[in-house]
Amino acid sequence: MTVHTWTAQPSDILRVGDGFLLADVDPGGTPGFEGDKARGKAELAVRVRELDALQERLYAQSRAGEAADSVLLVLQAMDSAGKGGIVRHVVGGVDPQGILLSAFKTPTEQERAHDFLWRIERRLPAPGIIGVFDRSHYEDVLIARVRDLASVAEIERRYDAINEFERKVAEAGTHVIKVMLHISPEEQKSRLMERLERPDKHWKYNPGDVAERIRWPDYMAAYQTVFDRTSTERAPWFVVPADHKWYARLAVQELLLAALQDIDPQWPAADFDVEAEKKRLAAS
Amino acid sequence: MTVHTWTAQPSDILRVGDGFLLADVDPGGTPGFEGDKARGKAELAVRVRELDALQERLYAQSRAGEAADSVLLVLQAMDSAGKGGIVRHVVGGVDPQGILLSAFKTPTEQERAHDFLWRIERRLPAPGIIGVFDRSHYEDVLIARVRDLASVAEIERRYDAINEFERKVAEAGTHVIKVMLHISPEEQKSRLMERLERPDKHWKYNPGDVAERIRWPDYMAAYQTVFDRTSTERAPWFVVPADHKWYARLAVQELLLAALQDIDPQWPAADFDVEAEKKRLAAS
Repeated sequence: MTVHTWTAQPSDILRVGDGFLLADVDPGGTPGFEGDKARGKAELAVRVRELDALQERLYAQSRAGEAADSVLLVLQAMDSAGKGGIVRHVVGGVDPQGILLSAFKTPTEQERAHDFLWRIERRLPAPGIIGVFDRSHYEDVLIARVRDLASVAEIERRYDAINEFERKVAEAGTHVIKVMLHISPEEQKSRLMERLERPDKHWKYNPGDVAERIRWPDYMAAYQTVFDRTSTERAPWFVVPADHKWYARLAVQELLLAALQDIDPQWPAADFDVEAEKKRLAAS
Repeated sequence: MTVHTWTAQPSDILRVGDGFLLADVDPGGTPGFEGDKARGKAELAVRVRELDALQERLYAQSRAGEAADSVLLVLQAMDSAGKGGIVRHVVGGVDPQGILLSAFKTPTEQERAHDFLWRIERRLPAPGIIGVFDRSHYEDVLIARVRDLASVAEIERRYDAINEFERKVAEAGTHVIKVMLHISPEEQKSRLMERLERPDKHWKYNPGDVAERIRWPDYMAAYQTVFDRTSTERAPWFVVPADHKWYARLAVQELLLAALQDIDPQWPAADFDVEAEKKRLAAS
């Protein structure tokens, strides 16, 4: 049973198109969804089974060598915006055998010795798999820009390199979905404060988060440039309002479902003689 | 709420100790569990939340650098015994961020150019993580023995190499749980037949499975030798009756829970001044 409480598809209304302005997005909104938190949670639970079923069929299709489709979900956000919750509650509903999760932290020495896309390329999903990036190559044009970790010329080069890279990835059969979870600074303050107030959350708190938080306007400007430069037809960005965790999870789930429905994977035909195998098995 | 329908702990009664004989194990049994399938499924759903909570605490503890504990679940079985179901229904209940799943297939050319433990070592879980091996280095003393893929002397060497390797892994903080899912040949026939009867399962069927199936007694003998030679104090084997899928899942869940309870991970103390951070955050 599908609840279908959407009045507009997230894949349409959350998409970054021409003239998009991040400043116009309300992080507290729930665009396209008619329903409250309880309804949202109910829908999440129902639809996760569809997601799991579609992924299994995608995997089956790829195993037969009939298609090279895969999905890549890129997650970017300010701290505490809910990337971990997306991974746990949306991605976690899919068979782990169908997921390749990669968390990109501060580059290691080995990674820094290579081009910034080197470590990314090594973690692209194989056919049949949903790849998930918790942070990504976009760190190299976000924190790198805000913190002056690379020259202006180098960062300019990277936007073009990213577009070229993602074009090739998409051409090879990977459906790229890039998501920015958008929270308000007020909501972030409240979430970080909760981490300080609960001893079982202290481990999630990093004093460095406040230093990044102070540069909020710089980060929003860097995101706006990312959207202007890298939201393409084949690898579009989606900005998902994330002050309501339940909405963000549901919206990202819908984006994944839309990608899989677009692929429309089919159970592959047997490449052996089914009746002959039945006899052979029965005799064994 | 915990249901606790166990009369004996799987970590005790399923453990391979001195004098263990695989031939004495009934694949259709449900040892230690008082309850039917419905009760088993209910308990699985309840206990998965405990497993997820314990893993989160294990991860938190490791992040603070306070402990190097991890868990490694090794899954071995004849085809269709239910490894995939364990991954989906037991491991799948844990936050994907806490899991490192590795499926070891026929070795690639690169892998064959190295020692058989090379590809294994690269997939060991980091502190805080539950590693899961779907097949493992044991293929190199199981199919390798049955199919004469290596000399007798080489296979003898491998038992010792495995014990030495696992001893080091355990000393480094990894709690190793090795599981053989034990089905009967009759149950396997029925499961393979189902794959042939359902078009949406054809992709899971491989004509080569029947060829392996015919060598059942050879495989059981190879497993018995594996148990005799490699069930150690620090890296014990457990033989889990698996004709009832619900029982096998529940038993493996209990084995994981027992390992985590044994580690008894604790929330780490903050390595910053909590009150000072609250003021700093409030002012930001």
